[in-house]
Amino acid sequence: MIYDRVCFIGLGLIAGSMALALREAGLAREIVGTARSARTREVALARGLCDRVTATAAEAVDGADLVVLAVPVGAMGAVAAEIGPHLAPGATVTDVGSVKRAVIDAVAPHIPEGVHFIPGHPLAGTEQSGPESGFAALFRNRFCLLIDEGAEAGALDRLTRFWQGIGARVETMEADHHDLVLAVTSHTPHLIAYTMVGVADDLGRVTDSEVIRYSAAGFRDFTRIAASDPVMWRDVFLANKDATLEILGRFTEELFALQRAIRTGDGAQLESYFTRTRAIRRGIVEAGQDTDAPDFGRGAKT
Amino acid sequence: MIYDRVCFIGLGLIAGSMALALREAGLAREIVGTARSARTREVALARGLCDRVTATAAEAVDGADLVVLAVPVGAMGAVAAEIGPHLAPGATVTDVGSVKRAVIDAVAPHIPEGVHFIPGHPLAGTEQSGPESGFAALFRNRFCLLIDEGAEAGALDRLTRFWQGIGARVETMEADHHDLVLAVTSHTPHLIAYTMVGVADDLGRVTDSEVIRYSAAGFRDFTRIAASDPVMWRDVFLANKDATLEILGRFTEELFALQRAIRTGDGAQLESYFTRTRAIRRGIVEAGQDTDAPDFGRGAKT
Repeated sequence: MIYDRVCFIGLGLIAGSMALALREAGLAREIVGTARSARTREVALARGLCDRVTATAAEAVDGADLVVLAVPVGAMGAVAAEIGPHLAPGATVTDVGSVKRAVIDAVAPHIPEGVHFIPGHPLAGTEQSGPESGFAALFRNRFCLLIDEGAEAGALDRLTRFWQGIGARVETMEADHHDLVLAVTSHTPHLIAYTMVGVADDLGRVTDSEVIRYSAAGFRDFTRIAASDPVMWRDVFLANKDATLEILGRFTEELFALQRAIRTGDGAQLESYFTRTRAIRRGIVEAGQDTDAPDFGRGAKT
Repeated sequence: MIYDRVCFIGLGLIAGSMALALREAGLAREIVGTARSARTREVALARGLCDRVTATAAEAVDGADLVVLAVPVGAMGAVAAEIGPHLAPGATVTDVGSVKRAVIDAVAPHIPEGVHFIPGHPLAGTEQSGPESGFAALFRNRFCLLIDEGAEAGALDRLTRFWQGIGARVETMEADHHDLVLAVTSHTPHLIAYTMVGVADDLGRVTDSEVIRYSAAGFRDFTRIAASDPVMWRDVFLANKDATLEILGRFTEELFALQRAIRTGDGAQLESYFTRTRAIRRGIVEAGQDTDAPDFGRGAKT
């Protein structure tokens, strides 16, 4: 057991998966949760994500020694303001938001003296959301990045052991660097996928039905990403505006160069560009961050 | 048995998968193949893709009643010129290229009187290529589009039964419409994925290793697409220039609108855009063209 009472504010995919995993690993005596929606709280209780739920965040954190903020990034500040006065001395507050600088700015002012605030971000998720979507193995072999901006060593070590206990590989990182890295590996790819799916949806000449029927040619991978939680992602882009706009700028610059190569018929440039990108895939598979089964092994062979 | 002798020009992922599947289904008496590289021909023989291989395309088509052109789109014209004089009367020539109008323009002039040319495109593939990469189930439940521009009914019916016999769902389509639909569902998504992976590779501040380590946040789906065969894709973009540039134009227009919403903090626009794209994903899963397992079921749960 690493914590006595763990409290989740928000009971979606990430919190639900954490709850199931920590219960499986026996890392806490009691799990308390809350969510704005009464239906979410009911489902969470029924699925056994929590031992008990409360109607408000202020009640939920009472006596908890780990509080996990698992709400959209734009809601973190309001939650922190609500729970601040009710946090137990010596407790640790962490979050699972996809942006770190904006969350720190919004949350830190509300954390009282004697409470440890250690921002975090597990790099795991699926296109599904809500209290039904969590599963215990979500974090297995995935990275969890913790932001160490002067955290107390004992609290940081405890939170690290907690994440490792549910399968994650923990690393620490500086907040601004996190936001730039994630703009590359996550935020910009999501925006691009949303855009491409939106374009396909817009095209009257290529009916919806054709886009869907013939999606196996590449498009369906984009639709998986573009099926992610809209509110969560709205907040991510608003909260990581600068880094996302910077990476988007580089993306369009490169895209225009390739577009020009297509227009002018410069096959050598296209081929050399496409050859370079193959190596990155090999690196990801070798790093254990994806499967090398063709098509992710998603069933063509079964 | 639907054909007596089937001949593959090119022995990569698609031809190899067709060969294995048609052998499994007993659709031909003999399979003959050729490829430019001697090593490819050896692997194809060793894997049992072909009963025999020949050093030239002209020899390979001798006496074949189905000839499948399975080379990059840009090589189709030269292959057709080579085999034209050697095609058996009554034979059917088809291809598996991802672009149809350019292939028709390049191939049709070389097809002699009395030989049926029915262009085709199976919407199936993986990020892997070469003679080792094929597998018999690749086309199962995937669409194969045949272009019917005045094909002889008997020949078209025979080719349709052939594709159905190896698991595909066959539909006919007009060539220009095919090229536009595929620009949306395949060609533009591939170009975008290549671009995003190239951008990530370029960024000095975000080291390669970080991009790879933290790829699970979304980027790794792009890298799968961007690991596809560089020569094949070079030819696709050059051969489907107009439609790809048109869809790219729409894509950048939408991307700029979303970029502006991020810059101005217009959360409502972002949220409503992202909500709309979710429905498309549901359609694809319901149409049986992808799995609804989270993350394509690629192993987090195992």
